[in-house]
Amino acid sequence: MNGAQSLIQTLINCGVDTCFSNPGTSEMHFVAALDSVPAMRPVLCLFEGVATGAADGYGRIAGKPAATLLHLGPGLANGLANLHNARRAATPVVNVVGDHATYHLQYDALLTSDIVGFARPVSAWIGESKNAKTVASDTARAVQAARAAPGGIATLILPADTAWNEAEHPAAMLPDIGPVPASSAAVDTAARLLRNGKKTAIILRGAALQGAGLEAAGRVQAKTGVRLMCDTFAPVSEGGAGRVPVERIPYFAEQIVEILKGVEQIILVGTKPPVSFFAYPDKPSWCAPEGCEFSYLAHPHEDGSGALAALADALTAPVNSPRRVPLRLPGMPKGALNPLSAAQIIAELTPEHVIFAEEALTASTPLLMTLAFARPHTHVPISGGSIGNGLPLAVGAAIAAPQRKVVCPHGDGGAAYTVQALWTMGREDLDVTVVLYANRSYAILNIELQRVGALGAGPKALSMFDLHNPEMNWVKIAEGFGIEASRAATCEEFATQYGAAMKTRGPRLIEAMI
Amino acid sequence: MNGAQSLIQTLINCGVDTCFSNPGTSEMHFVAALDSVPAMRPVLCLFEGVATGAADGYGRIAGKPAATLLHLGPGLANGLANLHNARRAATPVVNVVGDHATYHLQYDALLTSDIVGFARPVSAWIGESKNAKTVASDTARAVQAARAAPGGIATLILPADTAWNEAEHPAAMLPDIGPVPASSAAVDTAARLLRNGKKTAIILRGAALQGAGLEAAGRVQAKTGVRLMCDTFAPVSEGGAGRVPVERIPYFAEQIVEILKGVEQIILVGTKPPVSFFAYPDKPSWCAPEGCEFSYLAHPHEDGSGALAALADALTAPVNSPRRVPLRLPGMPKGALNPLSAAQIIAELTPEHVIFAEEALTASTPLLMTLAFARPHTHVPISGGSIGNGLPLAVGAAIAAPQRKVVCPHGDGGAAYTVQALWTMGREDLDVTVVLYANRSYAILNIELQRVGALGAGPKALSMFDLHNPEMNWVKIAEGFGIEASRAATCEEFATQYGAAMKTRGPRLIEAMI
Repeated sequence: MNGAQSLIQTLINCGVDTCFSNPGTSEMHFVAALDSVPAMRPVLCLFEGVATGAADGYGRIAGKPAATLLHLGPGLANGLANLHNARRAATPVVNVVGDHATYHLQYDALLTSDIVGFARPVSAWIGESKNAKTVASDTARAVQAARAAPGGIATLILPADTAWNEAEHPAAMLPDIGPVPASSAAVDTAARLLRNGKKTAIILRGAALQGAGLEAAGRVQAKTGVRLMCDTFAPVSEGGAGRVPVERIPYFAEQIVEILKGVEQIILVGTKPPVSFFAYPDKPSWCAPEGCEFSYLAHPHEDGSGALAALADALTAPVNSPRRVPLRLPGMPKGALNPLSAAQIIAELTPEHVIFAEEALTASTPLLMTLAFARPHTHVPISGGSIGNGLPLAVGAAIAAPQRKVVCPHGDGGAAYTVQALWTMGREDLDVTVVLYANRSYAILNIELQRVGALGAGPKALSMFDLHNPEMNWVKIAEGFGIEASRAATCEEFATQYGAAMKTRGPRLIEAMI
Repeated sequence: MNGAQSLIQTLINCGVDTCFSNPGTSEMHFVAALDSVPAMRPVLCLFEGVATGAADGYGRIAGKPAATLLHLGPGLANGLANLHNARRAATPVVNVVGDHATYHLQYDALLTSDIVGFARPVSAWIGESKNAKTVASDTARAVQAARAAPGGIATLILPADTAWNEAEHPAAMLPDIGPVPASSAAVDTAARLLRNGKKTAIILRGAALQGAGLEAAGRVQAKTGVRLMCDTFAPVSEGGAGRVPVERIPYFAEQIVEILKGVEQIILVGTKPPVSFFAYPDKPSWCAPEGCEFSYLAHPHEDGSGALAALADALTAPVNSPRRVPLRLPGMPKGALNPLSAAQIIAELTPEHVIFAEEALTASTPLLMTLAFARPHTHVPISGGSIGNGLPLAVGAAIAAPQRKVVCPHGDGGAAYTVQALWTMGREDLDVTVVLYANRSYAILNIELQRVGALGAGPKALSMFDLHNPEMNWVKIAEGFGIEASRAATCEEFATQYGAAMKTRGPRLIEAMI
């Protein structure tokens, strides 16, 4: 057994059986070892940002890490923006980054770089094997670090000679680190706050927005009337008909101020106080009302779902919340296609339990408002603000949940970043329907230009947000990367194409001309 | 005048008049300021790796830096791989990276990240303005740092409030730092070595491969019979008929060993001893013959061109070298298109003084061997080994030299990395002909798998290099990004299409089915 084989078998032992890969020469032994461990599924990506974003989507849905296989420092560098998103989503990811053989580094060959330096801003854990015999144990530690609550990025750097030299045996999985129970003092404090008569909100994140956690939050709501809220870009949330209703905090600072008006105390479950996404002259960064008090029921590394159940019990809340999202389908619109009518069609035609891997940006407000009352679904958005996340998220989510359809509503500006994801959708025959919102614009920036009060913007400035020249043709791009595609310019066309996509398995892109 | 305006005007004052941009909200004031300084040309790129790679291509051809405008840490992160290439090419680049307003950083909003951490592995200089009033002077220092010989990456981080707050006045250009003259002792040593009767090679890089530098090297060669060589991936080199002939060091370790066999001493001009690109079990990393002695005529920050001229004078070399590359066109091939026949057609039909922005990888050996005797041209290859460099290099080279045609021979695997560059070619109507070598493969990795001696590779491993499933259609991809494209499956088709491209201005892609 060489070091590469010990890596792959240890990953399997630790429950990591999917590897989003873009290997090079320094990873050849790792690639060769794939065939010796049949349980490992390698998924080839044409760009590392696709691999890391797919690992993010996989981790959010599977609740466990995938690995990535990346080619030295520059390969890791190409994956960093989506690792930033994954870090913000607290997604567990294990990066395996090949390096030159240990003895080769002294020669400073062209691809030599400061891999640890590249890894540091996104990684919760960084390790470098120096010897084939430690690869297995280093791998087990990397997986443990990635799985440590609430989930993080572990980057394991493996020089080529640690792959080809002789190793001993694979390592076993190490115990999970957390989540730890929230303190009973925090539960007592929350129970006391919820009885003091003040206007209160609970902001939920992580497990508290899914399954048992969300149900427990509903119990607390039913007993106390507290408002349940979630972050604008909560990494995973379950919504739609039959679910406990949760208010999503909006994007812009002044909207956050508005929605929180009158709130006197906020209890946080796995999250932080809400702040403005960007700073704007003369607008607040801190968006809570003056004097609003914050309390932590559970920190991100603690068991927020269990803390909510304990809180519900302490409050003698009912076993089930009667308050449920009603199914309220919007009806089928006609005529012009725009973000709202597209959202209505999506809401009408999407079956139950679809995963929305979403980076719709300016089109997302009408979409999320409409989907809130549509059939039950899971929402997985861009969570770190770095665009180019949605298509890879869809790849990873579809691989993590092969029985569920994935819908990927995506702005055209962001889709161009990691367009190569379309190819992996085709290669793996993933059940993904991409709704590509073609507004030929970085539309959000036209809004932001006004909001930041930037004066004097003339044609040169405005041309920086305008993607009309030349017009991208997303049908050709998608077909060029090997997947079926069509264009919809009206509600009728979009309904026909989207409806067909919902009834068929496999990858497809619809260019929605909004 | 606000900080943003002081930035743009200072860049202009310092000779930086081109900015490859992918801005976001935190850069809105910088964008708005573009219209107040007409001399600044912003070039929109759909992905930051295109922006940084284009800055690399621009800097190599213009001999001065372009700026990039990038959106916080993740925007910089997306540009890092091509900044790695630019660093290895010693290209001057000024990165302007927006950040949150200084007072907003404490809130850890989603896009907050360790920008300095991202910048460090690629940057020779990093600065952070904390105040609008220092933006101008910080900018002047950044440009000075980028221009410092031999050229480097300067990264200037500008919080949003340094853009919108009031500044004083733009700054003037600071004096250049180097290149310094090579030491006369080094010239004396080289002259002595060249007279000691040993088998000697000079390895050239930088200015020594262009214009006066190359001519001076030719004089030394004419007098002494020394071999003139250059690095495999020399960032810029002038080649073809009429030029002083230079042997290019090949890619693989054993080929380097072969070409250097018998060499007893090597004189370095702006470069380092040749080593293997990767390590391989049982193959050398250090490729010079045992006992071969190295001597530095000029270090990278020194004036290699001047040192060669001084050396030629010290040797009383003739004023001009009689040894010139003959024009030896290969004739037009017929029938099957392959890397060699494609190279022959390119050599036959390419006019004088074209710039080759080249990332042909496995197709590059026959191309460079053929081009060596073709019409005079400039060669600008991927210089740091991180694929996805070629298309952006072509963008930057075409903008730096609008009167020259750029040909971009590119492998399909690497082209998928920064495919968005095609859109900027269309938008700016750049005179670029992309020759896309479609072998549906990471072909180099099939070779490398054998070379590293990785045994046991089965179908799963081999599928990691195979891009047939699904087949990319580069004609559709290029048309999707807004440029004209065609496919050539035979020599006759390729000759017709390439010949037409050489006679027409504007962007075009030819998918060469090799």
